[in-house]
Amino acid sequence: GHPVFADLPETVFESMSRLARQHGAINLGQGFPDGQGPDDVRAAAARALESVSNQYPPMMGLPSLRGAIAAHYRHHQGLDLDPEREVMVTSGATEALAGALMALVRPGDEVVLFEPMYDAYLPLVRRTGGVPRFVTLKPPHFRIEEAALAAVFSERTRLVLLNNPLNPSATVFGPDDLALLAEFCRRFDAVAVCDEVWEHVIFDGRRHLPLMALPGMRERTVKISSAGKIFSLTGWKVGFVMASEPLMRVLSRAHQFLTFTTPPNLQEAVAYGLAKQDGYFEGMRSELARSRDRLAAGLSRIGFTVLPSAGTYFLTVDVAALAEDDVAFCERIVTAHGVAAIPVSAFYAEGGVRHLARFCFAKTDATLDAAVERLGGLF
Amino acid sequence: GHPVFADLPETVFESMSRLARQHGAINLGQGFPDGQGPDDVRAAAARALESVSNQYPPMMGLPSLRGAIAAHYRHHQGLDLDPEREVMVTSGATEALAGALMALVRPGDEVVLFEPMYDAYLPLVRRTGGVPRFVTLKPPHFRIEEAALAAVFSERTRLVLLNNPLNPSATVFGPDDLALLAEFCRRFDAVAVCDEVWEHVIFDGRRHLPLMALPGMRERTVKISSAGKIFSLTGWKVGFVMASEPLMRVLSRAHQFLTFTTPPNLQEAVAYGLAKQDGYFEGMRSELARSRDRLAAGLSRIGFTVLPSAGTYFLTVDVAALAEDDVAFCERIVTAHGVAAIPVSAFYAEGGVRHLARFCFAKTDATLDAAVERLGGLF
Ligand SMILES: CSCCC(=O)C(=O)O
Ligand SMILES: CSCCC(=O)C(=O)O
Repeated sequence: GHPVFADLPETVFESMSRLARQHGAINLGQGFPDGQGPDDVRAAAARALESVSNQYPPMMGLPSLRGAIAAHYRHHQGLDLDPEREVMVTSGATEALAGALMALVRPGDEVVLFEPMYDAYLPLVRRTGGVPRFVTLKPPHFRIEEAALAAVFSERTRLVLLNNPLNPSATVFGPDDLALLAEFCRRFDAVAVCDEVWEHVIFDGRRHLPLMALPGMRERTVKISSAGKIFSLTGWKVGFVMASEPLMRVLSRAHQFLTFTTPPNLQEAVAYGLAKQDGYFEGMRSELARSRDRLAAGLSRIGFTVLPSAGTYFLTVDVAALAEDDVAFCERIVTAHGVAAIPVSAFYAEGGVRHLARFCFAKTDATLDAAVERLGGLF
Repeated sequence: GHPVFADLPETVFESMSRLARQHGAINLGQGFPDGQGPDDVRAAAARALESVSNQYPPMMGLPSLRGAIAAHYRHHQGLDLDPEREVMVTSGATEALAGALMALVRPGDEVVLFEPMYDAYLPLVRRTGGVPRFVTLKPPHFRIEEAALAAVFSERTRLVLLNNPLNPSATVFGPDDLALLAEFCRRFDAVAVCDEVWEHVIFDGRRHLPLMALPGMRERTVKISSAGKIFSLTGWKVGFVMASEPLMRVLSRAHQFLTFTTPPNLQEAVAYGLAKQDGYFEGMRSELARSRDRLAAGLSRIGFTVLPSAGTYFLTVDVAALAEDDVAFCERIVTAHGVAAIPVSAFYAEGGVRHLARFCFAKTDATLDAAVERLGGLF
């Protein structure tokens, strides 16, 4: 039989956060912002404990939130979604992803994954009995290339799972990358699951292009996002799934047996938040871009080679000059220097890249400066 | 390959609630109470949006809640649980159940299920590649019998999944039933997953006996419960899992990739609620027992044969005298009489019992009386 969850190690994000707590380290590992998210969204959640029912909402999500999701993506990304039939609320993007794979992948189906990949992807694919086929994206640019797709796509391909923007490399895939991928999905009749949780967190005037918007992809794309990343409230675990009705029907079959529903007061608050003015989203982006630049400058100053970051909460640094691999580096800095980061090899099935470490910059200036200060002694 | 979620129908609870909304029916189908749960627990959730972090809590749950869970079960059930290593918080009991199966069942493993069973159980077992083996409990007493266990347990048995108290038959399994089951689990080295979400909802002076408390079961039982049923807040989706450390390590591997975590403000409020005085739990039980008696008396008065209910929010009635099966009956009453109920055949793999319908009595007197009034014309 195929491997099951019993065979897995603990996720690197949890292990590193525990190490950070144990060593009193500044935690630039697991991706979460400092602070408490927007005051008005939290206040909406408190109000909704009284104004909406605290009993089971509809399994697909509160109508108010589904309506807000459809309106939000119409406004921000030009998508035309039927809130009744093409939108579902989940307990975070993780549940949405697990559900999509469990709904769609039968044992023996091939699933295309792009390395580096978020550490949940491969164990979930394996648990469905799916057979992973890897496309390895190459640093420093991490672009999608035709030859790499041609090497893995076939009649056996059932599904492809892409994260765009891509964590941990902070790559934003553009029209060319996505058009290539779409062409292969159409040619081999594959479903694309696109984890777009970082869609609002992109910098320097870039625009997010949802894979679903490409020709021929509307009917075959599952778009996943999450309020956690949109509102800097990573603990809330309110995720969204968008797909055409035939796909959505199948996705809902998984959701109904994985969590069934998501707390209604948080759903209502997210509905409130999604209707915020453009200025909110722009403000979040420019603040994060400023933090990115501050951390990048600080790390460069003390001797690191910093790779570009086009989106997400993350930037990566090259640790090859330190003559140790990324795991050794991250263990050393969390124990001896009091700063936690994530080794990028944790995002590869067999640890392909071993010279990059990921830092989260979604922190106050004081936190970032203190981390740079602590790392100053490394060189 | 084995069937996957794509092959499933919609859960009966959602379908019936939708029908109830469409027909303006009184919804005694899906199990949720009228009302908003305890005011002080909701107020604690509102406060916690400010007092605890809204970012990712530890993957196992907030330390405050894990501590409160251990203290709660020590006080109420005499269990000795290490809050650090033997308690985990999940996004509802449904996630806990899905995770336990996905963590523990390998394709080909046999899983013993008791019919009638909650409708999520079988699809989840099938999705793991597990092979279901059914023990059919017989109305009106639904007891566990040795011959039935002997017929299904073998060296191939990996896991047994029991719901105690049992939804929908409202049976509370006692020391004899549980001792028999424990003996088979020990003999065949099987893990028991015990869904005890109704543990606090038992009537007439009964006491809940956790399967984990039986000799030899501490190390091989996964106990699942949920704040939704304890606090009449079914939308909150804060579940708990308790198991010995070696089992828990494996269970956490599934949780980290199914939802990873659960909203911290709701966790904190549940920690507050679990410490309530015994009077709270007794009050909830006696109020629900009063509602049970009111609905039972009303349904008897208009001509139904009402089966005993020892726990849960539910009672069942015998519809055989109406010369139609339970599905036809439930469809007729929701459309023509404006009352929703659940056909008990939905709790069987092949619809074994077809003459029982389940009503939820966790409602105000006015709601229950109105439902009885509407059903008065049936006989
Ligand atoms: C679920 S913890 C991981 C959070 C995250 O997105 C990251 O750090 O990459
Ligand atoms: C998840 S909806 C079902 C709720 C319930 O426990 C029931 O009605 O049996």
